Amino acid sequence: MDLETRIKQLEARVAVLEAQEQIRECLARYSFNADLGRSEEYVNNYTRDGVIDLAPSTKWTGSKQLMDFIGSPGGGHKAIEGRCQHTSMNYFIRVDGDKAWAEGYSVVYLKKGDKYEVFTCGFNHWDFVKHGDRWLLKYRYRRPVGGEEWGGKVIRDYLKAPP
Amino acid sequence: MDLETRIKQLEARVAVLEAQEQIRECLARYSFNADLGRSEEYVNNYTRDGVIDLAPSTKWTGSKQLMDFIGSPGGGHKAIEGRCQHTSMNYFIRVDGDKAWAEGYSVVYLKKGDKYEVFTCGFNHWDFVKHGDRWLLKYRYRRPVGGEEWGGKVIRDYLKAPP
Amino acid sequence: MDLETRIKQLEARVAVLEAQEQIRECLARYSFNADLGRSEEYVNNYTRDGVIDLAPSTKWTGSKQLMDFIGSPGGGHKAIEGRCQHTSMNYFIRVDGDKAWAEGYSVVYLKKGDKYEVFTCGFNHWDFVKHGDRWLLKYRYRRPVGGEEWGGKVIRDYLKAPP
Repeated sequence: MDLETRIKQLEARVAVLEAQEQIRECLARYSFNADLGRSEEYVNNYTRDGVIDLAPSTKWTGSKQLMDFIGSPGGGHKAIEGRCQHTSMNYFIRVDGDKAWAEGYSVVYLKKGDKYEVFTCGFNHWDFVKHGDRWLLKYRYRRPVGGEEWGGKVIRDYLKAPP
Repeated sequence: MDLETRIKQLEARVAVLEAQEQIRECLARYSFNADLGRSEEYVNNYTRDGVIDLAPSTKWTGSKQLMDFIGSPGGGHKAIEGRCQHTSMNYFIRVDGDKAWAEGYSVVYLKKGDKYEVFTCGFNHWDFVKHGDRWLLKYRYRRPVGGEEWGGKVIRDYLKAPP
Repeated sequence: MDLETRIKQLEARVAVLEAQEQIRECLARYSFNADLGRSEEYVNNYTRDGVIDLAPSTKWTGSKQLMDFIGSPGGGHKAIEGRCQHTSMNYFIRVDGDKAWAEGYSVVYLKKGDKYEVFTCGFNHWDFVKHGDRWLLKYRYRRPVGGEEWGGKVIRDYLKAPP
């Protein structure tokens, strides 16, 4: 292979590695914004038509509904803000140009009195889109561990992904 | 250095970064397959002579024993399947050609009634081998936090690893 | 762009990706050394003027104080050593030459009797410096989730970081 072709291949491979790191950062932003009460940043970390699908009857679509969920007094999230920690881990990430998806786990901790408890554990599939320089969440599909639905409905694309 | 040599060095460095990501993915597969009841995928994520060494008297060797552990009704794992979440984190990963090892932490959550509890915390050393395009687990050596054995017997190669 | 320039850019991008991985490794070392009683390694994973700032009135500065904290019988850490697990996750990392910072979460588990509990959850900002081949911790600023101080005082540089 000539040098030009090898450099081109390297540029493509490095771009994928950088995108995978940026997607991990996008999920870190998600957690930081949720836990620190940065509701506007939380919404802006999603696309305008972004969806958070937490359970069969618990789903928000688009910036306005996302802001209701995360930022309004009766929206659900305010009940735990200030004493919660949203973590995620065990990511499996695939990038294709300006689209990407990830699958992995989420765990939320909650302070109650002077103790911490494990509030939720979830199975997740996330979709991402790159807008300009920045990756945004487009869709979060999450089901609780030990819930009514099998987690394998959520975490399944890793089975078909090329190595 | 001439361009050819610099490209060659870049190719080697990028290959290591890609392998580190693939090893994180192999550990994600491990968790997904265990938690979602994909027993065959769980076994196939190990080499045929793969070992899972969870405690001094709890060890499975080779595909057949691994399948007994993960997939058979009395094999141990079925008791928690469907309500467990196997996570791992704080990885230290070293790659050498088609071999690699990692050290890090594991935490398993379990749903009991409508609560989640921390079921186990473990110290881990993992060995990996690359078969074709795919990294497989060859050996998982794990000891519980606060158990009879010192975790430093398990997590110790990071001390000698070059930066 | 000529080949020389493209190679130069690739070298810089790969160096950042490698540094991000080394910073994750530095945080893994932190955890391993703390949990496994490797007090000298714990101190040497910091710069000589390193600071760990855990709470408004709980701060250690420099190698001698760090050793007091981690290694001395009444220093605080010995009370949990051998049955604790320090994890961290959801990293947002930025590298600038031989300096770097990260923001993210920490969770410590503790064995009590035959159960594991969530001992602490924290918001973190970390500063790092590269000494020779190795990244060292220079400053850990951490505040507990649900504590007296808002976590947004700790985790805030990600808001201004370029994508």
